[in-house]
Amino acid sequence: MKAISVLGSTGSIGTQTLEIAEEFPDQFKVVALTAGRNLDLLCDQIKRHKPEIVALAHSSGMQQLKERLNGLQLENQLINIPKLVCGPEGLNEAAAWGKADLVVTGIVGCAGLLPTLAAIKAGKDIALANKETLIAAGPVVLPELEKSGSRLLPADSEHSAIFQCLQGTPWADNARLSTGVPTPGFKSIQLTASGGAFRDWSIEDLKKATVHDATSHPNWSMGKKITVDSATLMNKGLEVIEAHYLFGLDYDHIEIVIHPQSIIHSMIELSDSSVLAQMGWPDMKLPILYAMSWPNRIETPWKRLNLPEINNLTFKKPDKTKYPCMQLAYSAGKYGGTMPAALNAANEEAVAIFLEEQIHFLEIPSLIELTCEKHKENFKQEPNLEDIIYVDLWARKICREFAKKQSRKLFS
Amino acid sequence: MKAISVLGSTGSIGTQTLEIAEEFPDQFKVVALTAGRNLDLLCDQIKRHKPEIVALAHSSGMQQLKERLNGLQLENQLINIPKLVCGPEGLNEAAAWGKADLVVTGIVGCAGLLPTLAAIKAGKDIALANKETLIAAGPVVLPELEKSGSRLLPADSEHSAIFQCLQGTPWADNARLSTGVPTPGFKSIQLTASGGAFRDWSIEDLKKATVHDATSHPNWSMGKKITVDSATLMNKGLEVIEAHYLFGLDYDHIEIVIHPQSIIHSMIELSDSSVLAQMGWPDMKLPILYAMSWPNRIETPWKRLNLPEINNLTFKKPDKTKYPCMQLAYSAGKYGGTMPAALNAANEEAVAIFLEEQIHFLEIPSLIELTCEKHKENFKQEPNLEDIIYVDLWARKICREFAKKQSRKLFS
Repeated sequence: MKAISVLGSTGSIGTQTLEIAEEFPDQFKVVALTAGRNLDLLCDQIKRHKPEIVALAHSSGMQQLKERLNGLQLENQLINIPKLVCGPEGLNEAAAWGKADLVVTGIVGCAGLLPTLAAIKAGKDIALANKETLIAAGPVVLPELEKSGSRLLPADSEHSAIFQCLQGTPWADNARLSTGVPTPGFKSIQLTASGGAFRDWSIEDLKKATVHDATSHPNWSMGKKITVDSATLMNKGLEVIEAHYLFGLDYDHIEIVIHPQSIIHSMIELSDSSVLAQMGWPDMKLPILYAMSWPNRIETPWKRLNLPEINNLTFKKPDKTKYPCMQLAYSAGKYGGTMPAALNAANEEAVAIFLEEQIHFLEIPSLIELTCEKHKENFKQEPNLEDIIYVDLWARKICREFAKKQSRKLFS
Repeated sequence: MKAISVLGSTGSIGTQTLEIAEEFPDQFKVVALTAGRNLDLLCDQIKRHKPEIVALAHSSGMQQLKERLNGLQLENQLINIPKLVCGPEGLNEAAAWGKADLVVTGIVGCAGLLPTLAAIKAGKDIALANKETLIAAGPVVLPELEKSGSRLLPADSEHSAIFQCLQGTPWADNARLSTGVPTPGFKSIQLTASGGAFRDWSIEDLKKATVHDATSHPNWSMGKKITVDSATLMNKGLEVIEAHYLFGLDYDHIEIVIHPQSIIHSMIELSDSSVLAQMGWPDMKLPILYAMSWPNRIETPWKRLNLPEINNLTFKKPDKTKYPCMQLAYSAGKYGGTMPAALNAANEEAVAIFLEEQIHFLEIPSLIELTCEKHKENFKQEPNLEDIIYVDLWARKICREFAKKQSRKLFS
C-alpha cells in the first residue's frame, strides 16, 4: 500500500490520479490533497479519499471549505475532517506531508514549482507532471534532488516511455535525476510527436490558422494551451529540455520523430544500435499509474493494445521551417541557465495572447524569439530560485509588450 | 573479456559470431570451435581466432585438418596447434571446455542437441541458436538448466527482443529458463512475423507455389529450409514453442502478429497494458551480440535505425486458414511431451521433400499433421533424451512414408 499526495487534485492529472487510486484501493491510499478554486470537486474528493491534510492555494476559500466539510460531517458523509491549511505555506506543508510515499505534482505552471520543491526537500518520490520543475527550474532542482535523495518519476507519456525502456539497461538508475553528463552507452532518446492539429497543413495555410483550428487535437484530449503547444511543437521542444534534465543526455542526442498515431510513446536507442520502444493507447492514465506503481506494475483491466487493429504506424522527420518553436526550445536548452525559464514563460504568454485572438498563429514563435533574444541582457547561467521566479514574471511582461507592438503593426 | 565457444563455427550463426568477436577484440576471445565438413573455412578461423580446442563432427576429416594446421605452422601462420578432437565425444568436450564463459550453439538440428546439453551440464551460459534444444528437448533441458545453473540467452531475433524487453521487469530473471507456470503480471508475448514469401498471395495461388517462389524471402537472407519455414509460418510456430519454454508463458498468452517490415522484432505486454518493443534493422548480428554481451551492451558503429526513412510499419493478424502450420505448432506445443519433437522432425522432412519437388507447397502441413496424428500412438508425456532422439528419427521416417503415399496419389 502506497501513500499518495496529490498536488493539484482537481486538475486533469489530479483527477486521473484519484481515479486510479479509486480503481486500485488495495494499492494506494490518498493522504494529502491540494487544490485551487474548485471546492465542489475538492469536497467530493475529500469525501471519497479521506486525506489527512488538505491545502487550498488561496485563503479566500478556506471559510467556505470548512463550512462544507462541517456540513458533510453532520450528514455523516465524513467522519474526520482533515487538517486544513492554505496559501504557499499550506501547499508546502501538504506537499511535504510525512506519511506520503509519493507526491503527484499536477499543479500547472510556476505555481507548482514551490510545493514540488518542498516535496523534493522532504525526500519524497515525485510523480512529475509539473513541467516547470525541470524546464524552468532544472538548475535549482537537480542539486536538491541529489541532496535529499528524492526521485523524479515521470508521469507524462513520453518521459514515462523512456523511463520504462531504460529500466532494463545499466543506466536505469540515472533515470531518476540528471548528472548533466551524457551517459556513455545510452545513445539517444527519440521523442515521438503527434504533429498536432496542423501536421498536414502547409506553411501557407498556417498563416490563416484560427484558434478553433489550433485547439482541435487529433489524438489526445487536453486543455487548450497544451493543444496549441502541440500544434506549434513547442510541447515537444519543452519535453526535449525536460528529457535533458531527467535523463542526462545532451541536446544532440535527443531527437523528435513525428508519429501521428501516438501509439509509440517514445524510444531509446542503445549503444549497440538496438531500439526499445514503449507503446500503448494515447491515455494519460498509463504513465500516471506507472509512476505510482514503479518499480512494480499493477494488473489492470484496461483495453489491450491491438496493433493489427491500428494496422499502420507512420513516422517522419519534423519540418524545421514549419515548426520554429521546436528549434527555439533546442536553442534555449543549449543556452542553459535561465533561458529555458524565459522560453517557457514567453510561450505561455504568447499562446494566451493567441487564444485571446490578439496575434496570428505564426506570431507565437516570433514573440518567443524576441523575448529570448531580449533575455540575453539579463540572463543568468547559475540562477537561484528567486532568479527563476523573477525571469518567469519578467519574460511574461516583455512578451506582452512585444505583442502590443506587434499587434499594432498587424492590425493597424 | 569474455571467453566464447562457438558450436557450428562455419554455419551462418557461427560465422556471424566470429565476425563479432573480430570486430570487438577487447571484448571477446574465442576458446573453442566445432565444425562439420568445411575445413577451408575452419582452418581460416583457427588462424584468426587461435582457439584452445577444435572439434570436428566427423572423424573422417581429422587427418586432413591435422596436415593443414601443421602446414600453417610450418609457414609461421599459426604458432600453437589447438587440441583436436572429433565425433560426438569430441563435440561434447569442446562444448564443455573449461575456459569458456559462454557457448554459442549454432549447430543446426538434432545434431546440436547433445553438445548443447554438454555445455548446459557444465554450467555454461548458452547463446541459444539451436532450436531443437528447447522445441524438441524442452522437457529434458529444463531440469538440466535448473540443476546446473546454466542460463539460456536467446540469440535469435524474436526471443532476443522479448529478452531485451523483459530486462526491465520484475520477471527478468524468469527469462533464463521456464518455470512451466505462467508468470503473473507478464501478460503476453507478441511475436512478429514477416509473413514470408507468400504474405500477399491468395490461398488459391499458394497451390501453385514453386520451390523458387518459396525460397525468396523479402527481408532476411537465410538458408532455403528456414525461408520455406517462414513462408509456411512454421518458423513462427516453432518460435512460439521456444518462447513457451524460455519465458514460461502458456500458449494462450503467446501471440503472432504479421509485421512485413521486420523492424519490431517482438513485443511484450505487461500487466498494466503497457507494451514494450525492441526494434532494429533485420540483421542477426544484433541479437547474437546481445547474447554475447548480456547483461551489458557494447558500443557498435552499426547503422542506426531510422524510422522516418522506413516511414511505415504495418501489422495484421495472421490468417489461420492460410497458415495451417502455425496452428499445428500451437497444437503440438499444448500437447507437450514428445509432440513438438515429432512436429519439428516432420516439418524438416516435409520441407526437404518439398525442396526435392516431390510434393506441392500445401502438402507440407498435411504431412506434418499426418505424422503428429500418428505420433499419438507412441507419444510420451515425460520423455528422456533417448525418447526424444528416437521420436526425431521415427517422425522423419513416417513423414517420408506418408509423402510416398501422397505423391503416388498426386502424381499418378
